[in-house]
Amino acid sequence: MDILVIGSVAFDSVETPFGKRDDVLGGSATYFSTAASFFSAVRLVAVVGDDFPAEHKSFLNERNIDLSGLQTRAGKTFRWKGEYGYDLNEAHTLETHLNVFESFHPEIPEIYRDSPFVFLANIDPHLQLEVLKQVQRPRLVACDTMNFWIEGKRDALVDTLGHVDILVINEAEVRQLANEPNLIKAARSILKFGPKTLVVKRGEYGVLVFGEHSVFSAPAYPLEEVFDPTGAGDTFAGGFVGYLAATNNLSDAAIRKATVFGSVMASFTVEDFSLDRLRHLTWDDIEERFRRFQALTDFEGLD
Amino acid sequence: MDILVIGSVAFDSVETPFGKRDDVLGGSATYFSTAASFFSAVRLVAVVGDDFPAEHKSFLNERNIDLSGLQTRAGKTFRWKGEYGYDLNEAHTLETHLNVFESFHPEIPEIYRDSPFVFLANIDPHLQLEVLKQVQRPRLVACDTMNFWIEGKRDALVDTLGHVDILVINEAEVRQLANEPNLIKAARSILKFGPKTLVVKRGEYGVLVFGEHSVFSAPAYPLEEVFDPTGAGDTFAGGFVGYLAATNNLSDAAIRKATVFGSVMASFTVEDFSLDRLRHLTWDDIEERFRRFQALTDFEGLD
Repeated sequence: MDILVIGSVAFDSVETPFGKRDDVLGGSATYFSTAASFFSAVRLVAVVGDDFPAEHKSFLNERNIDLSGLQTRAGKTFRWKGEYGYDLNEAHTLETHLNVFESFHPEIPEIYRDSPFVFLANIDPHLQLEVLKQVQRPRLVACDTMNFWIEGKRDALVDTLGHVDILVINEAEVRQLANEPNLIKAARSILKFGPKTLVVKRGEYGVLVFGEHSVFSAPAYPLEEVFDPTGAGDTFAGGFVGYLAATNNLSDAAIRKATVFGSVMASFTVEDFSLDRLRHLTWDDIEERFRRFQALTDFEGLD
Repeated sequence: MDILVIGSVAFDSVETPFGKRDDVLGGSATYFSTAASFFSAVRLVAVVGDDFPAEHKSFLNERNIDLSGLQTRAGKTFRWKGEYGYDLNEAHTLETHLNVFESFHPEIPEIYRDSPFVFLANIDPHLQLEVLKQVQRPRLVACDTMNFWIEGKRDALVDTLGHVDILVINEAEVRQLANEPNLIKAARSILKFGPKTLVVKRGEYGVLVFGEHSVFSAPAYPLEEVFDPTGAGDTFAGGFVGYLAATNNLSDAAIRKATVFGSVMASFTVEDFSLDRLRHLTWDDIEERFRRFQALTDFEGLD
């Protein structure tokens, strides 16, 4: 089943303890759609400036990502500059230049409006709602957000959440959105806003998934070399939604397996800068790491 | 198989956002032996003052914990006072009064010297070595330590680790002991000090177990109410070593299952102050929560 994604396509400049890259391909919609494309066809809605090179478009096109919804506007592409210390869990933003993204309004091409799976990456919740108004009732709407919108546009966000099936956010954002320090209580109260499933990203500590009657815990893959955590969360979401769309199954069991596939994809992204690890990733690599997640978590039952 | 434990028996005064208790039963050896006693017979070596009430001794005795090695000295029992904020991961120590513990030297009773399983709780690494010199070669030696000894008595600690099979410490201590920010690299370098297995306690994020050729990840049990985290680590160790001693099996599979039983036991301890939740815990409670850990981590294999 096709997936529609709305988010950012950007140039990132990143410094980590392991190296530095300037103006490399980034953005939430880019990471999401690249990861999801290993599982399903993807339709991308975003905006870039006239400085966006053809080679990046070719890369996305070759990955079976439809770019009919990628607007090109006069001006510069969204740019983000950040750095990470040895605690790779937290990015320190040095510069954000919205550029053409500042006046972005998503226009969903006619041929995208029947998309059965929709992912609203981390953008203004008003824009997320604009998207939902333009599509026919999808089978699944998943959504990300961040502290900036929780603080500044809480009402619009809560409004959006009323139309969302799966919310995928960071642990600190769960506590902030629910205004509750206990994660489990916070999760229960967020489920009352509308989503049937809450996926809590915990960085190197993995992912917790809360459903109405079920909790699932997946570890992160223990890596000796994490070069650049940028895009890990969006890559996770891409693998997660990608698997659900590929199987067209929304059962608790499918959501658990999707969580592991999301974690598998994220574990590759952080092994190199930008999308470089995903560029030469194979399906065999993905299956092998999935099996390693099984070995990582397996314990026998009661005798 | 019998387990010998050396550590502290103490009075704790604890304040958490959920309540306050003064001079309640605590101490590493107390939590360890109570948790382990659900699985195996335990032999306790520690020291208390003449203020230690008979009711606490009766409680331990009724749990099949042998107190022949519990010295009673003139003076006061070790006292610790601490508090926790909403971030229940970290205790803030307000007062430590070693009292009779200050001049403690473990004397292993003759009848304890053939103990097949030994747990050296978090005490001066010199004392841990003193213990190992008094016992016949055990089948398994497990050991805990803390930042205080890593900083102040590093050489003695590394010496002790040369005689230890399983080291059970906190995540921050792993990085500190190895002087390496990447947890997986840090774990590999600690295994070179002697232990064949490193158990990394991560509080609400669960446990990672590193063996020579294997990594295992267990989540913490997601609890809506954590009243008091005091003793969670020692309770974990008690369930962990207790299970290994009960089955007399040190295979990778047994260590994984022991990790889950340790996590099960710890998840009960934090539900109430002191050892209060363990006082009325049943084997049915333990088995039920073990099954909940299975439900928490289960995902299907590749199709």
